[in-house]
Amino acid sequence: MFVILVYDVNVSRVTKVLKKARQYLYWVQNSVLEGEISEANYKKLKMELERIINKNEDSVIMYQLRTTKYTDREIIGLRKGGQDNII
Amino acid sequence: MFVILVYDVNVSRVTKVLKKARQYLYWVQNSVLEGEISEANYKKLKMELERIINKNEDSVIMYQLRTTKYTDREIIGLRKGGQDNII
Repeated sequence: MFVILVYDVNVSRVTKVLKKARQYLYWVQNSVLEGEISEANYKKLKMELERIINKNEDSVIMYQLRTTKYTDREIIGLRKGGQDNII
Repeated sequence: MFVILVYDVNVSRVTKVLKKARQYLYWVQNSVLEGEISEANYKKLKMELERIINKNEDSVIMYQLRTTKYTDREIIGLRKGGQDNII
């Protein structure tokens, strides 16, 4: 499946969350990652993020797209990251 | 269609971008908004954001989902905003 991950976490945990998410997805722009991921890796990533974040303070949203057939992505302005431009 | 909008813009334009996007979508978490939007309003929002941002510095991504039938949203940690909790 295709995943869009957005995080809004305390600054003290940003680096850890970003580092973990980048093991599975690619960085798109500040606080946003996306990519194809297997069901197994999705669960693994979720579990690992749950261990890193503080559930009373932080928020991570994962949008799961079972198909990207009905999805478009439009970028206004700068293309910061993405699959063709992994930072 | 359903839109997920994520922005990564210079701090001097954050308030303007957020204010504009909230006229059409609802705030979900820091730098993320989503919601149902008509084709006409989508174009209007895009045009208005293009006028606000600096294309050499800022980035706004709009994911368009023609259907949410194949999409799930999973929140890890705090639910900050959303349709049931408009800030």
